[in-house]
Amino acid sequence: MDTALQNVRRTSPLVHNITNYVTVNDCANILLACGASPVMADDIREVEEITSISSALVINIGTINERTQASMLAAGKKASELNHPAVLDPVGAGASALRTRAALELIENVRFAVIRANISEIKSLYYAMSGLKAAAAPKGVDAGAGDKVTEETLQSSLDLVREFALRAGCIAAVTGEIDIVTDGRTSFCIRNGHPAMSSVTGTGCQLSAMAAAFVAASPESRLKAAAAAVCAMGLAGELAFRRLSPQDGNASYRNYIIDAVFNMTGPILKEGARYEIRA
Amino acid sequence: MDTALQNVRRTSPLVHNITNYVTVNDCANILLACGASPVMADDIREVEEITSISSALVINIGTINERTQASMLAAGKKASELNHPAVLDPVGAGASALRTRAALELIENVRFAVIRANISEIKSLYYAMSGLKAAAAPKGVDAGAGDKVTEETLQSSLDLVREFALRAGCIAAVTGEIDIVTDGRTSFCIRNGHPAMSSVTGTGCQLSAMAAAFVAASPESRLKAAAAAVCAMGLAGELAFRRLSPQDGNASYRNYIIDAVFNMTGPILKEGARYEIRA
Amino acid sequence: MDTALQNVRRTSPLVHNITNYVTVNDCANILLACGASPVMADDIREVEEITSISSALVINIGTINERTQASMLAAGKKASELNHPAVLDPVGAGASALRTRAALELIENVRFAVIRANISEIKSLYYAMSGLKAAAAPKGVDAGAGDKVTEETLQSSLDLVREFALRAGCIAAVTGEIDIVTDGRTSFCIRNGHPAMSSVTGTGCQLSAMAAAFVAASPESRLKAAAAAVCAMGLAGELAFRRLSPQDGNASYRNYIIDAVFNMTGPILKEGARYEIRA
Repeated sequence: MDTALQNVRRTSPLVHNITNYVTVNDCANILLACGASPVMADDIREVEEITSISSALVINIGTINERTQASMLAAGKKASELNHPAVLDPVGAGASALRTRAALELIENVRFAVIRANISEIKSLYYAMSGLKAAAAPKGVDAGAGDKVTEETLQSSLDLVREFALRAGCIAAVTGEIDIVTDGRTSFCIRNGHPAMSSVTGTGCQLSAMAAAFVAASPESRLKAAAAAVCAMGLAGELAFRRLSPQDGNASYRNYIIDAVFNMTGPILKEGARYEIRA
Repeated sequence: MDTALQNVRRTSPLVHNITNYVTVNDCANILLACGASPVMADDIREVEEITSISSALVINIGTINERTQASMLAAGKKASELNHPAVLDPVGAGASALRTRAALELIENVRFAVIRANISEIKSLYYAMSGLKAAAAPKGVDAGAGDKVTEETLQSSLDLVREFALRAGCIAAVTGEIDIVTDGRTSFCIRNGHPAMSSVTGTGCQLSAMAAAFVAASPESRLKAAAAAVCAMGLAGELAFRRLSPQDGNASYRNYIIDAVFNMTGPILKEGARYEIRA
Repeated sequence: MDTALQNVRRTSPLVHNITNYVTVNDCANILLACGASPVMADDIREVEEITSISSALVINIGTINERTQASMLAAGKKASELNHPAVLDPVGAGASALRTRAALELIENVRFAVIRANISEIKSLYYAMSGLKAAAAPKGVDAGAGDKVTEETLQSSLDLVREFALRAGCIAAVTGEIDIVTDGRTSFCIRNGHPAMSSVTGTGCQLSAMAAAFVAASPESRLKAAAAAVCAMGLAGELAFRRLSPQDGNASYRNYIIDAVFNMTGPILKEGARYEIRA
């Protein structure tokens, strides 16, 4: 865990983001906070070039449109060609046909290192890949209430996410009450994080960006690195929550989470990470 | 007032935003702060679907372009069809022909529940609807100095805004030194807010988003709900201002305003709301 | 120095920004912090009109695309025609062929008052203008390590930036460890700022926006005004850094920098500005 963070700070990977305009500033600042370097570029005429000079690529479909969809595909293919780690955040997959379709098209054409999503998005994609109809659509871009990963549903969720990871051929990092990070064989069940994080927009997007930086900085142990990013984000949410004063709300919390990543050291992460590994 | 806020927190309406890229993050966070759930989507291929699964729609023309203008129209028509409350924020109407035209086109084609604007934007639209030339153009996206709603100009402003509301067939929520919320028959004159709010970009946009959540959560009393949103935003500005330390400036103020909405309870709003109703 | 700031606060220039979606909110808030008024508009159908009613134009290519590139050119030409000061921030010039080309095209077609960039971007543009191949490409949107302006490299950097300013026919404002602001004849070497500023995304973009406001408010002394904006931003970074508590990180720092601009007075700037003039 601590090594993965230290590798980011030591190598300062340049991370190319094709992402949404809602949370993009926080994605840039959390990349800087963890020691990485952000670059945002979404024009089809330059995305392959920017991906080429970067160490990792993040594709986040949060405000996808026709123009950026083409850029995502082009950049993703270039990353695959160069064996640069790519992370997909399929924001809202299942909430609209466009998002489900776009995410599937990306998964088919890009060799992703990590897909970071909530459980509803993973379910939607899994069912769509299997030609099944989802039982229930998620509510917007948040996980549906019936989908939550809790102690009760952990085993069944784990089974599904493992299946998804195997089918998609990548690491799946699914965040919720309990986070699951798995390559289909080895699985991390992570109990970091705080429920209040859902009152801040973009903590998932920020994690996706961090995961790209972590995986890029530890190419020999991508699964552990992705799990470390998830622990780091969750731990930042815990540390930031403790810092809240009575007058603070979700806007201050947003800042404190990024601040906590900025101040996180290897030892802090090592001590604060709470996870179990299931084979 | 307090009931309107409590309804938002109880029902957590999903609010679809087609909005500008300047203040979109704050709009998302203030929706979460008041208990609603944001979703941003502006691609023509999905906006009708996203509007359909949402409880309300916000159309904000702050950085409108040809692509998003078409999406706004499509989403707005779908919201009208489904009788979902739609809120228009005609940012900069009067400042460019495009914005005035786009706002008028939207008003003609969409049954808005609320139009939330500053007095200069309302005047520009009113004159344009009446085929009159505006006396003076606003300065950019802020209200012109000669337009301010003060105690001296309240009655004449109220008359104009009422006329506008009747002609547009919706609630007009006009913010300034004194805020006016009217359906053309019953009018709320609201004395919440703080002049320093104009030093933070996007407090108007944030209010438009909140108004959509409030109206969606109280469908039986839309006028009162819109007025409650205006009181809540103004009160948040007051509470946040009191929290400022000597080193704080507009960036901290921006966070404190959202924090204040996050921490606002029904009783706080009930006690802090300052309004009179004019028939 | 102090006069330039006071002129901004006194005249409150409207600044038209065609900028990237990563740091746009901070650009709007820092313009408000220094006393100016922001307007963002990038649709080709309105940019000339918005530029016409504004006092200054900022063109920032941080997330340029085909659509906004055309708008930048149209707005820039209009600003030249009206003799409104225009500022170019060639974010990432040298990092992709598109950005270098787009920046050169803008420089050829628009009479810029100021080009605000890091030293790597300036080098890339200078070499491209001279038909030379750059020795080393910058890393993404940050200055390359070998390019840093330090006490050791100051004279050679100054020579290059002066040459660039003369060739581009405008003021060059280059920020780094030491900042250089020059019209090719008179040069300000500025030692304000703090290394931690590079951990916050968009401090360069924010400075470009401020520079436009400062130059617009002091048309008779544009060079001094541009230098004052650079001093003000650097000083804000210093003051904000002193305010940091142990738990604060780059997110709080981001807010404190804007707050420091908000609270900056003429006397504070006069006392804190650290520069020398070289003829």
